[in-house]
Amino acid sequence: MNIYEEALKFHQEKRGKIEIKSTCEVKNAKDLSLAYTPGVAEPCREIHKDPSKVYTYTRKWNSVAVISDGTAVLGLGDIGPLAALPVMEGKSVLFKEFANVDAFPIVLDTKDVDEIVNTICNIAPTLGAINLEDISAPRCFDVEKKLKERLDIPVFHDDQHGTAIVVLAGVINALKIVNKSLKDIKIVINGSGSAGTAICKLLLSSGVKNIVMCDINGIITKNKELNNMYMEELAQITNPNNETGMLKDAIKYADIFIGVSAPNIVSKEMVKTMNKDGIIFAMANPTPEIFPEDAKEAGIAIMGTGRSDYPNQINNVLAFPGVFRGALDVRASDINEEMKVAAAYAIANAISPKDLNPEFIIPKAFDLNVQTLVAEAVKEAAIKSGVARI
Amino acid sequence: MNIYEEALKFHQEKRGKIEIKSTCEVKNAKDLSLAYTPGVAEPCREIHKDPSKVYTYTRKWNSVAVISDGTAVLGLGDIGPLAALPVMEGKSVLFKEFANVDAFPIVLDTKDVDEIVNTICNIAPTLGAINLEDISAPRCFDVEKKLKERLDIPVFHDDQHGTAIVVLAGVINALKIVNKSLKDIKIVINGSGSAGTAICKLLLSSGVKNIVMCDINGIITKNKELNNMYMEELAQITNPNNETGMLKDAIKYADIFIGVSAPNIVSKEMVKTMNKDGIIFAMANPTPEIFPEDAKEAGIAIMGTGRSDYPNQINNVLAFPGVFRGALDVRASDINEEMKVAAAYAIANAISPKDLNPEFIIPKAFDLNVQTLVAEAVKEAAIKSGVARI
Repeated sequence: MNIYEEALKFHQEKRGKIEIKSTCEVKNAKDLSLAYTPGVAEPCREIHKDPSKVYTYTRKWNSVAVISDGTAVLGLGDIGPLAALPVMEGKSVLFKEFANVDAFPIVLDTKDVDEIVNTICNIAPTLGAINLEDISAPRCFDVEKKLKERLDIPVFHDDQHGTAIVVLAGVINALKIVNKSLKDIKIVINGSGSAGTAICKLLLSSGVKNIVMCDINGIITKNKELNNMYMEELAQITNPNNETGMLKDAIKYADIFIGVSAPNIVSKEMVKTMNKDGIIFAMANPTPEIFPEDAKEAGIAIMGTGRSDYPNQINNVLAFPGVFRGALDVRASDINEEMKVAAAYAIANAISPKDLNPEFIIPKAFDLNVQTLVAEAVKEAAIKSGVARI
Repeated sequence: MNIYEEALKFHQEKRGKIEIKSTCEVKNAKDLSLAYTPGVAEPCREIHKDPSKVYTYTRKWNSVAVISDGTAVLGLGDIGPLAALPVMEGKSVLFKEFANVDAFPIVLDTKDVDEIVNTICNIAPTLGAINLEDISAPRCFDVEKKLKERLDIPVFHDDQHGTAIVVLAGVINALKIVNKSLKDIKIVINGSGSAGTAICKLLLSSGVKNIVMCDINGIITKNKELNNMYMEELAQITNPNNETGMLKDAIKYADIFIGVSAPNIVSKEMVKTMNKDGIIFAMANPTPEIFPEDAKEAGIAIMGTGRSDYPNQINNVLAFPGVFRGALDVRASDINEEMKVAAAYAIANAISPKDLNPEFIIPKAFDLNVQTLVAEAVKEAAIKSGVARI
């Protein structure tokens, strides 16, 4: 039985990877009078007087909805809300198992940005934070932006920011090994979708000066006709030397190549044109932009992929549970750049200098200690940046 | 410490009466590959091919949202979504403890009927059924009607139908004792809100011919100016003898008085004008329309209230968990009149003839056997009435 057959059997046996549990028993009239009427009227009255008490008397403090419209699910694309549900349940499981967050899936029967935004705002009083998932670009940028404007709880699109945090962590540790610094290097990112855009912005927030973005039409430049306002924004903030051409041109003299694009699009010849001690994160899944064996043969110093069967897996699960744990614990109103950068450094620093080596720049996904470190760092950053509310 | 102080302390200790649990562990790469990527892609693909498979591979089959806009919460009125959350969590606990339904609260930041309807339709792919709660009349009728038109899963407003089912169960058993039949009696219902309207309709569905509805303006008649289309509909289907006047006029020669209205509005004098072997369900809470002691002094044969400290408590918890259990188990597309009537008879028949007496016409809330009987009856009725889908 292969993994797909096994997973199907597993899902059929579980019939749902999460369930709701009561934290209290209701065995007699006394239990009922405490958990329900008439006793429940009292916390209701207290919250009515002081809305912040909802964090004291209900589960809002720890509740996250994993929300998707099913338009960009894994490598499967626009498969719709019902077919997206197994992924959202899986994500909810990871939230619980890795950081004790009470997450539940909400899949949406609409692809309209304003409908999505209104729906999420309408159900927000229930929630302590919102995790957007598998919403296609560029709609995901609109959805997130509008939600952040309207809501006073964190909104985090994991495909963007979770990926960006783990990539930044990998970059930080890789640079330690090759002894280069963020401000001096050239990074090429191939793919200008949700992940590529967020990676680019977080690297800029962290002090990188020279990023060249590419997509299927080649290098993104200021005087090119671009698809949407988000790409135009990217053109403004990247490519300081106004490079032109295709990926093979961009990758020349790059210190780092980051791929969130398509299988096998980087050749050994292209890799050989990169600067000495080159670093590659090839995250197309399951087939990366270039396989580690080939990249190393072409002289690459450090290599990461999205796969668990190679060293240095870029895995979002290293970030999002701890990020939400930290944000929820201080009742943050937002998950901002400072918190994301702090999370990346926490992940990077989870590997001690003596353990750090080219095959181990990113911690293992199952090291729960990483989640604790991330949560602590995110909490501190939330407090320092003024978005913590307790 | 009184019950309110105790309930406050209880809620503070729990910080949420429900939580999310995983049904699977994620301790290593194998677990992750089954519950999440890459294995999860396979159930996604299967559901994409055949959407009905979502009931096989996810928790949709057992998921219910307890949804409120916080406009008619307990006796507290329009206290808003945040303050309503403790009640919705409590209701979710009852769903789980009484019928193993995975229910979670959704409180809404809108009171607009169309916004509520659109929001619920948008999140519906996640759900096996919808429980509306504490939405004020007449908006609750609009919300329910529109949702039933648009959705293919059951939509059940418990304040209406849960109450109506338990009242009908009480009426059925009370009539056994006084040896009268549904078709021959006169019933007066005081209160034309959500509960009163639903009770009236379910009694009519069950064979009652003569119901007189009253509200604060007296008897509802066909040629009176009424507040909304729902009251106009009530006027058409009730009061066959065109009675006029106030409650004191309506109650003359009534066999049953059902109060879902206000404290102390029925006097002993009024009770004395009812027919012999009179029955009263006085459900205003916590102070009923008339106290049992007074009603009995005035000659009433059988008395029920909403209170747990008197015999014959009309408690919704006898109905909604089993009703949803039954509907979910046959993947019903609706909870229709036939299923509600079946639930009422199941509740009534849960008391054996030898145990039936004026102080025991309604089963105890904690008799879980009742839930099983209700679920079975609802399932059968769903199949017979053609709304079952498995």
